Amino acid sequence: MSTYIKDNFLLTNKTAEKLYFGYAKDMPIFDYHCHLPEKQILENKTFNDVYEVWLAGDHYKWRLMRNYGVNEEYITGNKSNKEKFIAYCTALGTAFGNPLYHWSQVELKEFFNCELEINAENAELIWDWCNEYIRLNNVTPQRLIEQSNVTHIFTTNEVFDDLSTFTKIAEKGYKFKVIPAFRGDKIMNVDAVGYCDQLAKLEALTQPINSIDDLMTALETRLQAFIAVGTTASDISVERVYPVPTADEANAVLCKVKAGGVPTETEAEIFKGYLTYALMKMYARYNISTELHVGAMRNNNTQMLKKLGLDTGYDSISDENSIKTMSRLFDKLNDENLLPKTIVFNLNPKMNAEIMTLIGAFQSDEARGKMQYGPAWWFLDNKVGMEKHLLDLTATGHIAAFVGMLTDSRSLLSYPRHHYFRRILCNYLGSMMEKGEMTQNEALVGKVVQDICYHNSIAYFRMK
Amino acid sequence: MSTYIKDNFLLTNKTAEKLYFGYAKDMPIFDYHCHLPEKQILENKTFNDVYEVWLAGDHYKWRLMRNYGVNEEYITGNKSNKEKFIAYCTALGTAFGNPLYHWSQVELKEFFNCELEINAENAELIWDWCNEYIRLNNVTPQRLIEQSNVTHIFTTNEVFDDLSTFTKIAEKGYKFKVIPAFRGDKIMNVDAVGYCDQLAKLEALTQPINSIDDLMTALETRLQAFIAVGTTASDISVERVYPVPTADEANAVLCKVKAGGVPTETEAEIFKGYLTYALMKMYARYNISTELHVGAMRNNNTQMLKKLGLDTGYDSISDENSIKTMSRLFDKLNDENLLPKTIVFNLNPKMNAEIMTLIGAFQSDEARGKMQYGPAWWFLDNKVGMEKHLLDLTATGHIAAFVGMLTDSRSLLSYPRHHYFRRILCNYLGSMMEKGEMTQNEALVGKVVQDICYHNSIAYFRMK
Amino acid sequence: MSTYIKDNFLLTNKTAEKLYFGYAKDMPIFDYHCHLPEKQILENKTFNDVYEVWLAGDHYKWRLMRNYGVNEEYITGNKSNKEKFIAYCTALGTAFGNPLYHWSQVELKEFFNCELEINAENAELIWDWCNEYIRLNNVTPQRLIEQSNVTHIFTTNEVFDDLSTFTKIAEKGYKFKVIPAFRGDKIMNVDAVGYCDQLAKLEALTQPINSIDDLMTALETRLQAFIAVGTTASDISVERVYPVPTADEANAVLCKVKAGGVPTETEAEIFKGYLTYALMKMYARYNISTELHVGAMRNNNTQMLKKLGLDTGYDSISDENSIKTMSRLFDKLNDENLLPKTIVFNLNPKMNAEIMTLIGAFQSDEARGKMQYGPAWWFLDNKVGMEKHLLDLTATGHIAAFVGMLTDSRSLLSYPRHHYFRRILCNYLGSMMEKGEMTQNEALVGKVVQDICYHNSIAYFRMK
Repeated sequence: MSTYIKDNFLLTNKTAEKLYFGYAKDMPIFDYHCHLPEKQILENKTFNDVYEVWLAGDHYKWRLMRNYGVNEEYITGNKSNKEKFIAYCTALGTAFGNPLYHWSQVELKEFFNCELEINAENAELIWDWCNEYIRLNNVTPQRLIEQSNVTHIFTTNEVFDDLSTFTKIAEKGYKFKVIPAFRGDKIMNVDAVGYCDQLAKLEALTQPINSIDDLMTALETRLQAFIAVGTTASDISVERVYPVPTADEANAVLCKVKAGGVPTETEAEIFKGYLTYALMKMYARYNISTELHVGAMRNNNTQMLKKLGLDTGYDSISDENSIKTMSRLFDKLNDENLLPKTIVFNLNPKMNAEIMTLIGAFQSDEARGKMQYGPAWWFLDNKVGMEKHLLDLTATGHIAAFVGMLTDSRSLLSYPRHHYFRRILCNYLGSMMEKGEMTQNEALVGKVVQDICYHNSIAYFRMK
Repeated sequence: MSTYIKDNFLLTNKTAEKLYFGYAKDMPIFDYHCHLPEKQILENKTFNDVYEVWLAGDHYKWRLMRNYGVNEEYITGNKSNKEKFIAYCTALGTAFGNPLYHWSQVELKEFFNCELEINAENAELIWDWCNEYIRLNNVTPQRLIEQSNVTHIFTTNEVFDDLSTFTKIAEKGYKFKVIPAFRGDKIMNVDAVGYCDQLAKLEALTQPINSIDDLMTALETRLQAFIAVGTTASDISVERVYPVPTADEANAVLCKVKAGGVPTETEAEIFKGYLTYALMKMYARYNISTELHVGAMRNNNTQMLKKLGLDTGYDSISDENSIKTMSRLFDKLNDENLLPKTIVFNLNPKMNAEIMTLIGAFQSDEARGKMQYGPAWWFLDNKVGMEKHLLDLTATGHIAAFVGMLTDSRSLLSYPRHHYFRRILCNYLGSMMEKGEMTQNEALVGKVVQDICYHNSIAYFRMK
Repeated sequence: MSTYIKDNFLLTNKTAEKLYFGYAKDMPIFDYHCHLPEKQILENKTFNDVYEVWLAGDHYKWRLMRNYGVNEEYITGNKSNKEKFIAYCTALGTAFGNPLYHWSQVELKEFFNCELEINAENAELIWDWCNEYIRLNNVTPQRLIEQSNVTHIFTTNEVFDDLSTFTKIAEKGYKFKVIPAFRGDKIMNVDAVGYCDQLAKLEALTQPINSIDDLMTALETRLQAFIAVGTTASDISVERVYPVPTADEANAVLCKVKAGGVPTETEAEIFKGYLTYALMKMYARYNISTELHVGAMRNNNTQMLKKLGLDTGYDSISDENSIKTMSRLFDKLNDENLLPKTIVFNLNPKMNAEIMTLIGAFQSDEARGKMQYGPAWWFLDNKVGMEKHLLDLTATGHIAAFVGMLTDSRSLLSYPRHHYFRRILCNYLGSMMEKGEMTQNEALVGKVVQDICYHNSIAYFRMK
């Protein structure tokens, strides 16, 4: 039985189809936040089999298998690539309503021209089909990205990462740009094991760091180096936004840790609170956008953390609320006229309304949609999450200012998520048009669609 | 291109249309909570242009412009009325899904007979059309209210407000009544700058206030004065409900402040907690309904607060939860047999279920729906918010007991929100009828619709 | 006017109908959590009138009447059965959208073959009809259960309950099994009045209890007795999950209470935190599933608690969040390889996403869906709640692993809730099929439907 996915997938009416096919489908992709390893893009090796490009390293898919009771041997264990592939197809075959149920099917169609429905029965056929496709076609990162019509990729890089990779990629003549977003998390997480080693890496590239001022100077040196390879965005990821302490308080924590001390939880929050504030101020001075991620509770399962390490599918959504401290942080920066353009990515959907209304209190004419509520992300990156995001966003904000979708992915096969989002966007608008709840002016709506798909992010991240 | 709004706007099926046109549309309006200045109603001046009546003072509209990146000069600054009007029309033209996108279009249609779609292209035409309409018609507050078929307006008044305005309005022979709701917020907010001046105003009208008992007596004196001009409702607005302290504890805070001291945050909460409790008790004794507003986090943006003052579009939704203290407050009052009729207005939609189930634990036969969950309000006053409110309300409560909609507005053009709500209500019920999820007895359903539109609030607020 | 409920009730398309009538409708019922009194099932007496079997003891229905302003005399007071019955029918007649509006109508249809629409006008007719039906038919618990095609019932029993009733039921030759779930709440609630009496009951059946270790041994003795009559499930009910203290800390609280002391709130939480942990460990060792209930705020109305006692309709939804402590509890148990199969029942719908993603971090191949997110429950046991549950569950989990519905009821007439759930499940899947959002393979989908209706719970609770 061939796949259930038809041309009008997720488009429930004619107007939605007109918007999608007439305006959205062929827009290029600007992926302004992802976790692709830039070295993989530079090396540009062909893949050996469909497991390697499709399943290896994708903890979203692993998690689905665990939810279905699959033995870990078939997920991250010693089973063969083919056995793991078949186990995944089997688990996926009845995962109705799960985002992966759609993603996976679309990925096979778009990248392997495979129309077979994913399930236990077809698993072996699909394995053969996709591997044959790989054998006949030169499936490389470059090819996957270019066939997806991507023009810009923002990777996520620690402050001490080697930036020469980006220069080398720029020399390869790809049809797309790869630019790092500046991420200070390893320097911010003062309570992490091996923190001083991270600091040492930064020192090695800049200067000795004996005070919080030294630290900020060193970070600024690196930010300038990032800017030299094109950076216009930064990432911050915290479970919640912490109160902003004084520089002296943060300095005391840094000195304690440099002297071999272990920070208390309170001290760690002081340090993170200060760095969030000081970094955002710095970003404002350099006109660097901040992508602020809140709401993940990480590494719940200690046993599996020891076995498999970070980012292996054991995170969840936090309840830690920071609406008050977020208000105070934004207000303090705004009062100093140093609130940067900021996209808030929030992982707990129950907090949509409070965060969306808060950022509405800090808009200005520096940019259309200076303060953004980021798209449905990670656990929310699915049909329900995206539809709720659009409903909440339009109820409290201005849809035409929205910078649109990203992948947030470690996988080169994730670009269809942009198409998925575009279908949902067009269906949302098309449905309102058909119901007489908004203008019938297709050209006007189509322009907004194209802005959200591409132009708004180009302008927001100053790529023109 | 003329407006997308047709007769069956928001009505997706024939039964919904029958309910709306047959039962809801022509019901009078009881607006039991708004912020209209009673002086404006008394003076009854004609407006000079459409900006004055439609945009000036409406911070909902300002906020939308800021979300679109409009320069403040065009919002609250020195640009001309016409330039501001055009800037708003331009921002609104693509604000699909935003409640103002609907409100604004409906307002032009109902009050200026203007069918032009609001957008950049039409802005100047609309400016001319509406101003011409104003020139040809005597557009006054009285006219706007009467053509909206309003019978009762409850304004919001501080305890020391001059009540003679209401007596004078009563003498004007308008077709509607204007009655103040008793609001003690300025007396409750002991931590506000200039608190003692507020207290002095109350003293000037009543008696010296040297203790918490004096204060309650003074407030009671004023409540009696309000009742003399028709008051049957009161307002309380707090970020959350605070624990109820003893009278002595509250007294200590009052004495400290009277002596020139500045209350700590804890002391302020003690004072507010006591006043909420003591006022509600007093309201119970006089059979005055309490409209209890929770969940606003106000004045997030200090810079703009200094520039523009309160209520200018910089508030947001709070996360402060008070379900436990709310339970304890209601229980204490109920135990003393002095729990008044209460409408809880909650601004954070994630808390709907917990508050709705709580108030279900304090119902009695004193009134049908003695404890009410207030309608979708402020940031929730939109299609999504109203539909969620109805779904949550009917899932946990009794729809036929609901007192229905209000405007909560500073604008005389807000009455179409009642029609908007009625359409959504009729569509909700009509859709269930068409799907076979409820009775097909149209007369029975129609009666419930009319009760919610009008009769329930008349009974609840003892207007007959 | 006869009832609005037709064969295709809640089924909005042909595929949904095919799934429901072809796969779901005739599956047996496994009711894995309810509050039926086992003695009533053993005694198997015929009912005297429709009030007795339909209204008496059902605090859901009482609550609806209170929301409508009905006088307590007609609810739990001295009015006659008939007067109470008529008062309920009157209140229900306009409770559109409330779950009881559907439940009640379906109950009359399924158990009394009564098609009259419930409302004020028909109340007396219905009273007569149902009582006539009772007179002509031998309406007993056995009959009600068997005609509902129930094969397994898990009642909820305290650790010291008399288990001989279950042995006697087993000897009666009913077509269904009745098995107790092991519930330690009365032993856990160390802060309840009369706690030592509860402890004495446990001691009387086991051994002297002078330490926390004695207590756990005594509980294990009882668990073994439960297992001897078939038990494979347990219940824990807490407002939230508390941190896990040491055994010594819990022991100190127990000793204090045994010595006549009153535990502080903190001490009570220490004790409950320890017992939750220690019981779940014990359950893991005996392969007993844990049904963990969180999120109820009980007995809000003290005045009515004094009048009517527990479980009379005065509970509500709590906001107490335990996502962090829940994570730590599961992680600790998992680290000791003693995390039992667990179904989390959460009463606050805003917490769905955070709990669902958390349990996804603790799956294993011990069972398909070892960690379950329980179905929409109590205040959420309605169309909106069930649909939200399915949407949230499928977005973050695996639908085919779901153990499905239960009644959680004190009433023998609640089995139609399983059909109600099945209709919503089939409509959810059928709608996705019709929209081209999932496979068109009806047999594959039908199998998943049957697994969720019945087979998954049979496997999960080891009933085969």
